[in-house]
Amino acid sequence: MNTVSETIARKGRLAGNVLKTISNESRSKLLLKIHDGLKANAGSIRAANKLDLELAEKSQLADSLYKRLDLFKGDKFETMLVGIKDVAELEDPVGKVKLARQLDEGLNLYQVTAPVGVLLVIFESRPEVIANITSLAIKSGNAAILKGGKESVNTFREISRIINSVITENELALGIPSGVIQLIETRQDVSDLLQQDQYIDLVVPRGSNALVRQIKSSTKIPVLGHADGICSIFLDHEASLNVAKRITLDAKTSYPAGCNAVETILIHPEMPEWWEVLKNLSKAGNVKLHVTKDVKDAYLSKLNEDSQSSGYFQSFIVDIDESSDFDKEFLSLDCAVKFVESTEEAVSHINVHSSKHTDAIITENKKNAEFFLKGVDSSGVYWNASTRFADGFRYGFGTEVGISTSKIHARGPVGLDGLVSYQYQLRGSGQVASDYVGSGGNKAFIHKNLDITGIQL
Amino acid sequence: MNTVSETIARKGRLAGNVLKTISNESRSKLLLKIHDGLKANAGSIRAANKLDLELAEKSQLADSLYKRLDLFKGDKFETMLVGIKDVAELEDPVGKVKLARQLDEGLNLYQVTAPVGVLLVIFESRPEVIANITSLAIKSGNAAILKGGKESVNTFREISRIINSVITENELALGIPSGVIQLIETRQDVSDLLQQDQYIDLVVPRGSNALVRQIKSSTKIPVLGHADGICSIFLDHEASLNVAKRITLDAKTSYPAGCNAVETILIHPEMPEWWEVLKNLSKAGNVKLHVTKDVKDAYLSKLNEDSQSSGYFQSFIVDIDESSDFDKEFLSLDCAVKFVESTEEAVSHINVHSSKHTDAIITENKKNAEFFLKGVDSSGVYWNASTRFADGFRYGFGTEVGISTSKIHARGPVGLDGLVSYQYQLRGSGQVASDYVGSGGNKAFIHKNLDITGIQL
Repeated sequence: MNTVSETIARKGRLAGNVLKTISNESRSKLLLKIHDGLKANAGSIRAANKLDLELAEKSQLADSLYKRLDLFKGDKFETMLVGIKDVAELEDPVGKVKLARQLDEGLNLYQVTAPVGVLLVIFESRPEVIANITSLAIKSGNAAILKGGKESVNTFREISRIINSVITENELALGIPSGVIQLIETRQDVSDLLQQDQYIDLVVPRGSNALVRQIKSSTKIPVLGHADGICSIFLDHEASLNVAKRITLDAKTSYPAGCNAVETILIHPEMPEWWEVLKNLSKAGNVKLHVTKDVKDAYLSKLNEDSQSSGYFQSFIVDIDESSDFDKEFLSLDCAVKFVESTEEAVSHINVHSSKHTDAIITENKKNAEFFLKGVDSSGVYWNASTRFADGFRYGFGTEVGISTSKIHARGPVGLDGLVSYQYQLRGSGQVASDYVGSGGNKAFIHKNLDITGIQL
Repeated sequence: MNTVSETIARKGRLAGNVLKTISNESRSKLLLKIHDGLKANAGSIRAANKLDLELAEKSQLADSLYKRLDLFKGDKFETMLVGIKDVAELEDPVGKVKLARQLDEGLNLYQVTAPVGVLLVIFESRPEVIANITSLAIKSGNAAILKGGKESVNTFREISRIINSVITENELALGIPSGVIQLIETRQDVSDLLQQDQYIDLVVPRGSNALVRQIKSSTKIPVLGHADGICSIFLDHEASLNVAKRITLDAKTSYPAGCNAVETILIHPEMPEWWEVLKNLSKAGNVKLHVTKDVKDAYLSKLNEDSQSSGYFQSFIVDIDESSDFDKEFLSLDCAVKFVESTEEAVSHINVHSSKHTDAIITENKKNAEFFLKGVDSSGVYWNASTRFADGFRYGFGTEVGISTSKIHARGPVGLDGLVSYQYQLRGSGQVASDYVGSGGNKAFIHKNLDITGIQL
């Protein structure tokens, strides 16, 4: 007997199998139709969104969350519509030839990008995200099962209704079945679907650490995302003071809730005037410093040289809890601070404590920088740049599916490329393996790489 | 308190972190030293191997398994040694620049290949495989924890002892710590290590379906491999009879135990003389055909046209069990046979029943072939070629880590490339994100792709 979740997952799989065969032209055309449909139905979407806002008000939702819910604040709705068009116009991520090799006369092997298949995407209560993810999924040839935050449920339901009616209206002309985009509404649906590893190929959770961690621990389906963003910056003894001050301030304070914000600052004690970095963080950034014993002693002795300001800066330091503070994503104006005696020690600390997100070295010493870039096992390794650059838009990916801290498939900020995998196409003319050496025959393989520039299969 | 498995996994992780920073020159040099060490100690390896063979004889091991154990049969030992040298000479899979992009003046982004980290490799009782996997792991900068089949345990132990003494002897000169290769010996060790997802990045199981399936179901670590190889061949109505006969015979009979052997043949009933394909399989290949009711009726009526041979060919057909035979890897001279009325129906059947390994269409009709290649969701999609080509050596990968039926990371035959992932290196000169548009500043990103030809970081 099929469960509800199996029916949903199976429908997604069947729709995905069809979508896989649809041309980029038709996929992009559908996105433009969806754009038009959402634009034409702005009224009903606004009404649904108003309902969500009223419920939010009644339940006294936090102000910042309330603001997120409002789809018609400023030009958010228009930006959402433009985003769909932008994705439609991107280069086709599917069917790209990555490798072409002649195995023998009339026997050619091609590695070709292909959709992953069926995505389960769980996201926060931002109404515009459903349109964004729908665009990315359809563009990349993947079916998607979507679950948005419950506070936006009325808006999601209306947008999803419109998207699906557009898909249905165009099914005859474009061949894309409505099952490619399905909306689910409850957490129970999510946990049931996480068991459907036979049909679902990739889970993309966007949201709190707790949510991502819980999803990772309760499914066999690969998860593209990150639970924690524990990023570190190492100030080498040859760091430029000015660069160190600017980058630590930006990385800690420009958006402390971001997963690419810095949480730990490692300092080489021989860096000239390193204490100015800490003073700058506190004074310009209001940052509370969780310092180790030796950092505290050294910092205090420097602060005491100026008795007037000493008390002010001292008020920003607290004793670190070494058993947990190096493994903590503060998500606030807090920062762990530690001395390390060498680049090697910095790399070791990071490889043990970081969440494999993004870590940076500040130095003018090329040798130390290269060692750091090679030694740190994180998806982003930076030299003299703020960890806050770890972002799909800043990388120029046009759009971002999420940031992955996995070690395989897609790492770091993930664009459309993370939603495709590849297949090997072998185009022959009747060849059999047993004619070749190694399998009983005496024909030799040619194994000649072909130029893939401009190749079109 | 650390468990034994945690200690092993942690040791692997620490060794992997060091290995990641070691140059290709040193990694390759170590492989040559290992080659020399194994060559110089052929005597003690032979003695250990003899012990395994004696134990196998006592326990009356099957003849085919016994033959596998014998490392000094023919030129197997020499081939193993040559294999280590071959891997040493391969191009460095680590540090390749896959993408380079100028984000701004003095701020360049590079996507660079990097080792996955720590591998847990479980393999069969073939003594030479330990040398092969050691070479691949070290060459790709990964630490490896190895578990070989128990029948070769003495040989493995001796080879591992030699490998580790070579690593230790050269640690000072090359900087590669002995923890990069660790041998474990019991199934309990394996199941404990499968829980160490904090330290181990990828599991590569080589062996029986049951083993792979059990491993996949008992770990959160990504698994690179395949449980089943349920491959299909579709004979379109425009298939060449000669090609269809040759390819089905090769795919079914040249190595029936192979994961790339065909298990299901789908036939368009309008293919001229399709019954000759079945007759050929039985006569030339001794293949038992598990046929559906309609195939049976049509085939029998054709066979009855020649009453002399009819009985002979009838003896090769049995009624299919449709509830299971389409989902079965026979691994024997058996084959499921079914009619499908179109390429679409063939693709649908395959997408439901295949194990996403390798599936082929035989046709002279380009349109149908292209639809099949686009529609089938398997790692290998073939046109007029035998499924038996799905193999790293035949693809020209030089060496094969395994064949993956996953949908992400590495699919199909996996060479050294499957043991690397990538990192993003950002090389700046003090830039901070908040200076740029979208984050409060007014600088625009350049986002200009750089030519990666010959780029060396």
